[in-house]
Amino acid sequence: MLFHARMDVRIPHDLDPEVRADTVAREKAYSQELQRAGKWPHLWRIVGEYSNISIFDVESTDELHDLISGLPLFPYMDIKVTPLATHPSDVRATDGV
Amino acid sequence: MLFHARMDVRIPHDLDPEVRADTVAREKAYSQELQRAGKWPHLWRIVGEYSNISIFDVESTDELHDLISGLPLFPYMDIKVTPLATHPSDVRATDGV
Amino acid sequence: MLFHARMDVRIPHDLDPEVRADTVAREKAYSQELQRAGKWPHLWRIVGEYSNISIFDVESTDELHDLISGLPLFPYMDIKVTPLATHPSDVRATDGV
Amino acid sequence: MLFHARMDVRIPHDLDPEVRADTVAREKAYSQELQRAGKWPHLWRIVGEYSNISIFDVESTDELHDLISGLPLFPYMDIKVTPLATHPSDVRATDGV
Amino acid sequence: MLFHARMDVRIPHDLDPEVRADTVAREKAYSQELQRAGKWPHLWRIVGEYSNISIFDVESTDELHDLISGLPLFPYMDIKVTPLATHPSDVRATDGV
Amino acid sequence: MLFHARMDVRIPHDLDPEVRADTVAREKAYSQELQRAGKWPHLWRIVGEYSNISIFDVESTDELHDLISGLPLFPYMDIKVTPLATHPSDVRATDGV
Amino acid sequence: MLFHARMDVRIPHDLDPEVRADTVAREKAYSQELQRAGKWPHLWRIVGEYSNISIFDVESTDELHDLISGLPLFPYMDIKVTPLATHPSDVRATDGV
Amino acid sequence: MLFHARMDVRIPHDLDPEVRADTVAREKAYSQELQRAGKWPHLWRIVGEYSNISIFDVESTDELHDLISGLPLFPYMDIKVTPLATHPSDVRATDGV
Amino acid sequence: MLFHARMDVRIPHDLDPEVRADTVAREKAYSQELQRAGKWPHLWRIVGEYSNISIFDVESTDELHDLISGLPLFPYMDIKVTPLATHPSDVRATDGV
Amino acid sequence: MLFHARMDVRIPHDLDPEVRADTVAREKAYSQELQRAGKWPHLWRIVGEYSNISIFDVESTDELHDLISGLPLFPYMDIKVTPLATHPSDVRATDGV
Repeated sequence: MLFHARMDVRIPHDLDPEVRADTVAREKAYSQELQRAGKWPHLWRIVGEYSNISIFDVESTDELHDLISGLPLFPYMDIKVTPLATHPSDVRATDGV
Repeated sequence: MLFHARMDVRIPHDLDPEVRADTVAREKAYSQELQRAGKWPHLWRIVGEYSNISIFDVESTDELHDLISGLPLFPYMDIKVTPLATHPSDVRATDGV
Repeated sequence: MLFHARMDVRIPHDLDPEVRADTVAREKAYSQELQRAGKWPHLWRIVGEYSNISIFDVESTDELHDLISGLPLFPYMDIKVTPLATHPSDVRATDGV
Repeated sequence: MLFHARMDVRIPHDLDPEVRADTVAREKAYSQELQRAGKWPHLWRIVGEYSNISIFDVESTDELHDLISGLPLFPYMDIKVTPLATHPSDVRATDGV
Repeated sequence: MLFHARMDVRIPHDLDPEVRADTVAREKAYSQELQRAGKWPHLWRIVGEYSNISIFDVESTDELHDLISGLPLFPYMDIKVTPLATHPSDVRATDGV
Repeated sequence: MLFHARMDVRIPHDLDPEVRADTVAREKAYSQELQRAGKWPHLWRIVGEYSNISIFDVESTDELHDLISGLPLFPYMDIKVTPLATHPSDVRATDGV
Repeated sequence: MLFHARMDVRIPHDLDPEVRADTVAREKAYSQELQRAGKWPHLWRIVGEYSNISIFDVESTDELHDLISGLPLFPYMDIKVTPLATHPSDVRATDGV
Repeated sequence: MLFHARMDVRIPHDLDPEVRADTVAREKAYSQELQRAGKWPHLWRIVGEYSNISIFDVESTDELHDLISGLPLFPYMDIKVTPLATHPSDVRATDGV
Repeated sequence: MLFHARMDVRIPHDLDPEVRADTVAREKAYSQELQRAGKWPHLWRIVGEYSNISIFDVESTDELHDLISGLPLFPYMDIKVTPLATHPSDVRATDGV
Repeated sequence: MLFHARMDVRIPHDLDPEVRADTVAREKAYSQELQRAGKWPHLWRIVGEYSNISIFDVESTDELHDLISGLPLFPYMDIKVTPLATHPSDVRATDGV
């Protein structure tokens, strides 16, 4: 079951630089772990912004909230989640691909 | 090169029903042709809305505008395109996948 | 799995009165069938508006889109769906109620 | 009499960590007390956000403002209250359930 | 119990002039009946707009929705209701006036 | 001559607590003085928010700006003023009440 | 006493051309009469839009609403009125000019 | 003197097809005449929308409004004009290019 | 050539009080110098807000940006400039006044 | 391939003045290097704002994100990128200019 998320990173400029660097490093490791587990199949940068567009593949809304609220950058992001459904013109759905 | 698009369909309620049915049918065929050609790798329905989220893979912005403005439903849609770049945490980019 | 929806009804004032009355009657029957099936556990009117706030309980996002897009008033509504998760302070979750 | 509220928590990142932890703990206790008293029949997390959607059941608007403004997190939340009425299609109202 | 409402009148320009005149006349009569009954204690025009700001005094949200949805102009208005509570600095509340 | 104002209080969380308490106390005294003088005939709390809706009765826009900008909380409020006129359906205007 | 107004003209494209031409002509005459009477001291076109910014000089909010609602184009305009006060740095106020 | 404009074309779907085709053809001719005269140095399509971004080079705001309001599509466009100034980092200004 | 500007002053509450007082005093002197030079023919306070509406009369957009960006409060203001043109109904333009 | 960007500079008022001056100086040098390389063909100031409108000419969205995220002021700017395509009425495209 797929969900679309837009995440805008807003790290306060006066955050301690070490805390910042550590948080960003942990964010990357956490994100890659979820990608490799198949939970986060797409992750793109929005051109010109410190923002991403993500697609998550989860079993439930509870699982999705656990994944997202576990992000090390979660306290510093504005996040908007949109639920997705199969599109009737999607060839992968209609062709059995 | 990837672009994200959100399309909201707003067909006027007084459009001739035959024109409407024909336009929607041509839209589906056109969309599936582009999907099979690899130009439109993802197409999802937004739950609860007559809207979709699409990912396009094109060589140029001119090509993308040609594809989108060729949609039979183009005159009846509000469309917002967002350019995407590789995300530095994307495992497919960093792992060579 | 719960989803929150706000639905704003915008029936065009020049819609044929019989079509309108028939659509509204079918909407009510369809809605009550889903409520009795446990798929639509809450339905409230927003005071002063031709709008409602609904809670749906479904197995998947595909099921939810099928339910909502099957509403007879679907072509005449602006709908916004928000996915919900268990709140950590919810006594029904933490008390085992 | 039911009211819908959306609450977005915005705790300043430089708030003293002990003050923060104490406030969040008192918020949970206060919230659960109101839930058990039947004043706060529904409390859901919005997926991906530090936000909730709540339904309150009160005797008056004064009572509701007292409940909400008494929340320990009240100074750190953006809150929007929407009054609800019985929906004419609600089976619990029309079936006498 | 007081509620604040802003009502913006949007009568379609192609509405039959007789229907329009009759609706506006019935709106005035209905509104004045509610004012004289004490249900609608304040009614002001917003300068430069076909809009009003109203204060309603009702026993419940169900009563308020019945009053507002009974307005002859209800199908042609955008309405936003805001619940009000006693202000702690209101001299009429604190002076016992 | 009446004016409608919505005031949203946004006191910075790091304001000195004594300054804050003193400012809020002076605000209350100032507000009640204006209410008793008939300049501020209505003052309501918006349910769930640190905000009010006020009606002012003044001789001129200059007088109104002097009153509002003299509020001790003025530097910490977002304020929006809307001019009001007599509504043609107002029974107090048409009945001579 | 001065008020600022922004007026956006939205004449429906299917309005009868004679009605339209007549309305626009009457609007011009009415506007110029008010300008010559000193009630409408400034009238500017917003570049690139069918919109104007106006300054009105009136005795009361009731007078202003009468003037604006009497505009022949009033049913076809979105209008937003903002009350103005003397600015403390205005040399005409402080120099006695 | 440069001005930036964004123009969104909103031709009503029930406009007579001949009127539409004629208007679009005249728009193109008019636009190209202004481009060749140096008044409209840049004209770009926004990808995925029936919209453009334009740069105009004019002597005055009156001249600019005359040019834009003379567009055959002017009655069917939402237009927003933004005045531009020389940027202090512009190499063409600082290098004398 | 006239331009309309709305300026909203947002001085940070923790700015040094002497810096603040000095900046405000210099702002007033600078503004009055421009008014007396005929560059800033109108300056009004928006009732209830720390904001103004200004009309500037300049030779070019570069001159206007120089004037505005030279304001001592410029770093603490949100400013929106709108270009103005002669209105065809303006009696001062059509009467030769 | 062209992209339009609007950049709004929001430097925190409590940033160290030396850091600020150094960042602004490096921004100018970096910007001019890109302009001279043909990557940033247009750069304009928005009148009255600490903002610019830019046109970039790049080979890919990845290249564009690298250029923009390399800006020394990137952490202090709100940036919105819009992809551009050739306009069918552009004389430089149709005339072969």
